[in-house]
Amino acid sequence: MSLNGTKKPVIAVVGAGPGMGEAIARRFVAEGFAVALLARTEEKLQTMAQGIDKDYGKDTAQYYITDLRVEESVSSSFRKIRNELGPVNVLVYNAGARRVNGRSILDTTSEEFENFTKINLFGAFWSTKCVLPDMLAAGKGTILFTGATGALRGTPGLSSFSPGKFGLRSLCQVITREYQAQGIHAAHIIIDAPVDGKLIGGVRRRQWAREDAKEKLEDIDAHLLQPADLAHTYWFLHTQPRSAWTHELDARPMKEQMFSKL
Amino acid sequence: MSLNGTKKPVIAVVGAGPGMGEAIARRFVAEGFAVALLARTEEKLQTMAQGIDKDYGKDTAQYYITDLRVEESVSSSFRKIRNELGPVNVLVYNAGARRVNGRSILDTTSEEFENFTKINLFGAFWSTKCVLPDMLAAGKGTILFTGATGALRGTPGLSSFSPGKFGLRSLCQVITREYQAQGIHAAHIIIDAPVDGKLIGGVRRRQWAREDAKEKLEDIDAHLLQPADLAHTYWFLHTQPRSAWTHELDARPMKEQMFSKL
Amino acid sequence: MSLNGTKKPVIAVVGAGPGMGEAIARRFVAEGFAVALLARTEEKLQTMAQGIDKDYGKDTAQYYITDLRVEESVSSSFRKIRNELGPVNVLVYNAGARRVNGRSILDTTSEEFENFTKINLFGAFWSTKCVLPDMLAAGKGTILFTGATGALRGTPGLSSFSPGKFGLRSLCQVITREYQAQGIHAAHIIIDAPVDGKLIGGVRRRQWAREDAKEKLEDIDAHLLQPADLAHTYWFLHTQPRSAWTHELDARPMKEQMFSKL
Amino acid sequence: MSLNGTKKPVIAVVGAGPGMGEAIARRFVAEGFAVALLARTEEKLQTMAQGIDKDYGKDTAQYYITDLRVEESVSSSFRKIRNELGPVNVLVYNAGARRVNGRSILDTTSEEFENFTKINLFGAFWSTKCVLPDMLAAGKGTILFTGATGALRGTPGLSSFSPGKFGLRSLCQVITREYQAQGIHAAHIIIDAPVDGKLIGGVRRRQWAREDAKEKLEDIDAHLLQPADLAHTYWFLHTQPRSAWTHELDARPMKEQMFSKL
Repeated sequence: MSLNGTKKPVIAVVGAGPGMGEAIARRFVAEGFAVALLARTEEKLQTMAQGIDKDYGKDTAQYYITDLRVEESVSSSFRKIRNELGPVNVLVYNAGARRVNGRSILDTTSEEFENFTKINLFGAFWSTKCVLPDMLAAGKGTILFTGATGALRGTPGLSSFSPGKFGLRSLCQVITREYQAQGIHAAHIIIDAPVDGKLIGGVRRRQWAREDAKEKLEDIDAHLLQPADLAHTYWFLHTQPRSAWTHELDARPMKEQMFSKL
Repeated sequence: MSLNGTKKPVIAVVGAGPGMGEAIARRFVAEGFAVALLARTEEKLQTMAQGIDKDYGKDTAQYYITDLRVEESVSSSFRKIRNELGPVNVLVYNAGARRVNGRSILDTTSEEFENFTKINLFGAFWSTKCVLPDMLAAGKGTILFTGATGALRGTPGLSSFSPGKFGLRSLCQVITREYQAQGIHAAHIIIDAPVDGKLIGGVRRRQWAREDAKEKLEDIDAHLLQPADLAHTYWFLHTQPRSAWTHELDARPMKEQMFSKL
Repeated sequence: MSLNGTKKPVIAVVGAGPGMGEAIARRFVAEGFAVALLARTEEKLQTMAQGIDKDYGKDTAQYYITDLRVEESVSSSFRKIRNELGPVNVLVYNAGARRVNGRSILDTTSEEFENFTKINLFGAFWSTKCVLPDMLAAGKGTILFTGATGALRGTPGLSSFSPGKFGLRSLCQVITREYQAQGIHAAHIIIDAPVDGKLIGGVRRRQWAREDAKEKLEDIDAHLLQPADLAHTYWFLHTQPRSAWTHELDARPMKEQMFSKL
Repeated sequence: MSLNGTKKPVIAVVGAGPGMGEAIARRFVAEGFAVALLARTEEKLQTMAQGIDKDYGKDTAQYYITDLRVEESVSSSFRKIRNELGPVNVLVYNAGARRVNGRSILDTTSEEFENFTKINLFGAFWSTKCVLPDMLAAGKGTILFTGATGALRGTPGLSSFSPGKFGLRSLCQVITREYQAQGIHAAHIIIDAPVDGKLIGGVRRRQWAREDAKEKLEDIDAHLLQPADLAHTYWFLHTQPRSAWTHELDARPMKEQMFSKL
C-alpha cells in the first residue's frame, strides 16, 4: 500500500535520532522528499514523524522500528519502505553507538563490542544491500555514511566504537569503487566535534553557565556542531553534479579546539 | 584608487587560468563578488577579465600579472589589490605547475623542482601572509587551496609536483590549526581526476572520437571534471555555516576509473 | 599441567597456517620461545606442531583447535594455553579470511560478511582481552596484528574483508593508546603484496612457467613476499628497545608492481 | 684520492648532528661501513669524525662541510665523497630544520620558510640525484629519510617545518614508485617524539629534576627516544631482505604520552 501517492523521492534515515538524523530528514523533506525514519525506540520515532508531518504535511514521514543489530529487522524495514514509499533514492546511515564515557578494552564487554560494531558497521552493510538493487536499476542513488573522528584514529576508551567506524569508512570506499561508475554516489562525512542536542548540548550549556562563559553561551554555533548546518552538507553532497562527486569530507565548528583530530 | 566603488566583497584567484580558475572567479562574481585574477601571462588574464566584465559589468574583474616563483611579485600584486579593490575576503590558491608527461627524478632538473615547488607551495605561503592580517582584523575570511591526487601520494613521474602539493596540504592544516578559531576557514580541495578544458579535454575528445566512444563523447561530464561544477564546491565551502566547517574534501567524476586514487 | 617445564617465553600465533603463521612461529621458536598454534583445522595444526617439534625438540609447539568466529572457542583456547604453557608474552593475530576471488557487495552474503569480519576483527578483540591481564601484571608484552593493503583502502571485491581489516588497524591503535605506557607494545604490520606459499606461490609459479618468465622464476623472492623474511620483521618488532617502538610498518617485495597500494 | 682503501661500503649521513646522525653513523660503522658526514658546522663535524675514528680506526669517518640550502654545496660534497670514498651505498637524509619554539605563520619570515624548506626538502632531492646513478648501476642501494610527526599533520607553530617534511615524505614515495623495482630501497622513518640529546634531553632532565620526577629520571629511555635505539631501526631497514621491504614506519618511546600524534 503506497503512502507516497505523490511519488516524492524517498530518503531513508537509518539511526534517526532527534539530533542529526531528524535534521537531515527535515532538510530533505523541505526539498520535496518523503522520509523513512529507522531506529529502535517507537516513542522517539513517532514524535519525530508527527513533528515532520505537522510541519510539512500528512504522510511526509513514516517510521520503522528497527533493531540495527539484527539483519532480519533491517531488511524487513526496507521491504516495508519499498512497499509503502517506493524505491529509496537516498540512504543516510547515521547510526553511531558508543559509550559516552569510554572504557578501556579490559572494561569493555564482548557484548558491547559486538552490539556496537553491529550497529556501527553491520547495519550499514545490510542497509546498503537492501537499497542498491533499486538504485542500480535507476542508474542513480546517493549513499551517505556518518563517520566520526573515531573513523580515522583508534580513540582510547572507544574500542567498541572505533573499529566499527573504521570499517564503515572502508565499506563506503568499497561501494564507491564497485558502484560509482553505475551512478551510485557514496560519501563519508567525518563529524569531528560534538553535535549540539539535548544530551551533549545540555551538558555543555550547564557547564558554560557554571563557568559564566558568556562568549560561549552567546556563540553556541561556533562551539557545537548544529544539526541543521550539518544537514546542509548532506544536501550538498546529494545534489553535487556527477562530474564532481565528493567521496569524503569532514566538519567541525569554528572554535573547536580539538584540532588534534584533524 | 578604488576600482571597487560599490564595495563588493573581494576574491583573489591565484593561478587563474581559463579552466578552473576562471570558473571559480565567475561563480563568485555571479554571487556578487569583485575578482582579482593573478597569473603570469597578461594575454590570458586580459581575455578572462574582459570576458567577465562583459558578462557581469565593468570593473568586476581586475588582473595582476604575477610570477608565483618570486615573493616580491606576489606581495606587490596583493598590495595593488588592497589599494584597488580593498581587503581580500576569499583567497583561492589554484596554481599547480606540473609536466604533463612526468619525468623520473633523474630526468627532472633542479630548476624544474625549484620552480614548480615554488609555484605549488611557496606562492601559497606568501599569498596567505598577504591576506591574513585583513582577514584577522575582520574576524573572518576564507582560504581555499586546490590540491591534487599528488597531494596524497607520491605519484611516479611527478617528483617536481607531488612534494609541493603535499606541502600545500600541510600548510592548509597549519592555517586551520593556527587561525580557525579566529574566524579563518581554510579548506583543501583534492582534485582527483583530469579537469575538462582546452588541453586535457581536447586530447580526450580527440582520442574518444578516434575510438568512436560515443558513450563518452555524449557523457563528457561523467568522465571529466567540469570546471563550473567544481566551482560549485568552492562556493559551498565559502558559504558553510561556521558550526560545520569542512577542512578537506575530494572530487572526481562519476565514471572516473582511477579509483586507486581514492 | 605444564607442558613448558623449562619456562620458555610463550608466543601465541592465532590464525596459524602453513605460510606466515608457521614462519613466525618457527622464528620465535628458534629464538627460544614455546609456541601455541591456534587455528580451525586439526590436521594442519598437527602437521605444523609435529614439524616444529621435530626440528626444535619435543613440546616446543602446542596446538589449539579454535573457531575464531566464536568467543568461547577463543577464550577456551587461551585458558588452556595459560594452564599448559603459562602466560602469553607475545600475541600474533595473523588470521585473515577473504575470498580469493572477490565478489561485489550484492554478491556477498551476509553470512560471509559476518563470518569474515568476526575472524578478521572480533577474534583479535577477544584474543587481546585474554592476554592483556597477564601482560599488564608483567609490565610488558608484545601484540602484533597482521594487516593488509585492505586495511588502508576499501578494495573493490572485498567488502567482506576490508571493513574487518580497517577495524583491526583501529583496534591496534586503541591498544597502543590505552596500554603502551604500561609496557604493551602493539604493532600493525601491513602486508602489501601476495605472500609466497602453496596456494598463491603455486599459482604464480605455474603462470610464470607458462609465460616462460625465467627472470621471475629465478628471483621468486623479488616478486613474492617470503614468509621467513616477514617473520624477521615480526621478530624485529618484538625486540625493539622500548625507547623506539614502532606502531605500524608495511612490507612488499622489491619488484612488486602494485605500487598504487602504497 | 681514495680514503677508503679497504673498500668498505659507504654511508652518507646528511644532516649529521651529535644526536641521531652520529648514532646512525656509528651503528653502520660498527657493521663495517665507512661514513661520510655532511653538515654545516666544521667544528661539530670534526669532533664527530675524530670520535668515530678514535673508536673504529683511522679514516673510518670523513666529513664534508655542506650548506643544504645550496644545490652546488650539496653536489660538490657528493662529488668529493665519490672521489674519496667511492659510490654511496646508503644515503641517510637526516636534516630537519625547525624553530624549537614554533611561530605562527604571520610571525614566520619568508626567509625562514625558504631556508627551512630547502634544508628539509630540497637538500634531499639534490642528494638523491647525486647518489641514484651509482645505486642504479649497482642494482641496489638504500635511501632512508628521517621524517617527523610534522610529516603527517600540519603542526601549529611549524609552518616553516611541516610543509617541507610533508614534501620529503612525498619524495620518498616517488623514489619508491620509480626506482624500487631496480633495487632501490627507500624508506621514511617517522620520529614521533623528542629525541634525547644535549638540547632536548637536557631541558627535560632539568625539568624532571625540579619536579623531583624520579621515575622519569630513572627511566629516561622510556620517555625520550634514544639515538642508538633509533639507529637500530635504520640498520634493520637497510638489512631487510628484498622480499619484504618496509617503506614507512614510525617510532616513539613507551611512555610517550603524545598519543594524539599516532
